[in-house]
Amino acid sequence: MKIVLIGAYGKIGKLVQTAMAGAGHDIVKVGRKSGDFQVDIESRESIRQLYQVVGSFDAVAIAAGEVVFAPLSQLTAENWQFSLGSKLMGQISLVQEAIPFINERGSFTLVSGVLNEEPIFAGVTGATVSGALEGFVRAAAVELPKGLRINVVNPTILKESEAHMGQFFPGVIPVEGWRVAQAYKRSILGVQTGRVYKVD
Amino acid sequence: MKIVLIGAYGKIGKLVQTAMAGAGHDIVKVGRKSGDFQVDIESRESIRQLYQVVGSFDAVAIAAGEVVFAPLSQLTAENWQFSLGSKLMGQISLVQEAIPFINERGSFTLVSGVLNEEPIFAGVTGATVSGALEGFVRAAAVELPKGLRINVVNPTILKESEAHMGQFFPGVIPVEGWRVAQAYKRSILGVQTGRVYKVD
Repeated sequence: MKIVLIGAYGKIGKLVQTAMAGAGHDIVKVGRKSGDFQVDIESRESIRQLYQVVGSFDAVAIAAGEVVFAPLSQLTAENWQFSLGSKLMGQISLVQEAIPFINERGSFTLVSGVLNEEPIFAGVTGATVSGALEGFVRAAAVELPKGLRINVVNPTILKESEAHMGQFFPGVIPVEGWRVAQAYKRSILGVQTGRVYKVD
Repeated sequence: MKIVLIGAYGKIGKLVQTAMAGAGHDIVKVGRKSGDFQVDIESRESIRQLYQVVGSFDAVAIAAGEVVFAPLSQLTAENWQFSLGSKLMGQISLVQEAIPFINERGSFTLVSGVLNEEPIFAGVTGATVSGALEGFVRAAAVELPKGLRINVVNPTILKESEAHMGQFFPGVIPVEGWRVAQAYKRSILGVQTGRVYKVD
């Protein structure tokens, strides 16, 4: 299976690489500046060019996209625009632009986050974008052509990120990253669609 | 109680007017072009000007905001921008800009829609925006100052809209509009916060 992995060199991306290794899969590693190919997910044109050079494939797995962490009282219109443009519209564009290239019965795996159900201070944009992505995935699942599937992985904080992120998630028990990677594997190799794979 | 009702002349807005009438409440009716005051919810500046002229108040209730209904395969970047700018960022801006003006222990009531949990064909933007609004409300509830509360009403199709909308919601049993208005009343006059009031 040929898998386009967006954000291949982030924490989750590396874990997905490990989880999918050794079963004959061809993993196309895509980063912002590194990897087999580069993409700026905030640009539809950049995404289109990526798929044109990659050619056909069976899966798109995304471990990319950013939001601005800031207190509600300080969130500016620009903060919102960045957050919606990157983690939300970046992933939506990666889905929409892939449709002409992806093979029949292929799949999309997106990433949200725990904040829409368990908010933390300064996590309003994260909560909003995660809620949006989960609504998108449920609705896109019923419309995608070619027997395509789509799911989203909703991870809580990773053990691997606890050192610098744990202070913002008081009392949250981190998950080991390999479990998040297994959720990607389930989405890519499984049969379900329109699902939120919660890892906590 | 002084209630700023945004979208006062839409179907839901009129029902909220009726539900809140006759208990000594002062309802400030705001429309795009009609009402006591006008606002363009896609413009932060227009929203700021609205609150400056209205002065202090106890509640903001929103029954406004639009999304583009179109099949996933036809959704353009512009369609997304419009939908996120109107129903999502319009409501978020109405909350953020109100904070300096609204009285202690005041409340915000937003509106989402059933599509994030029960998608229909061509409803991808509606599903995405509704999911976003529900994530936003849960996260904003834990950060709002001054004892402010925030909830969102998630209505399914209204009986009053069945004639022209029912065909897009096969098998969905419409609700009578007064029940949606009661959800607004519960949010405005109740004590809870961070809640999704589902009316179906």
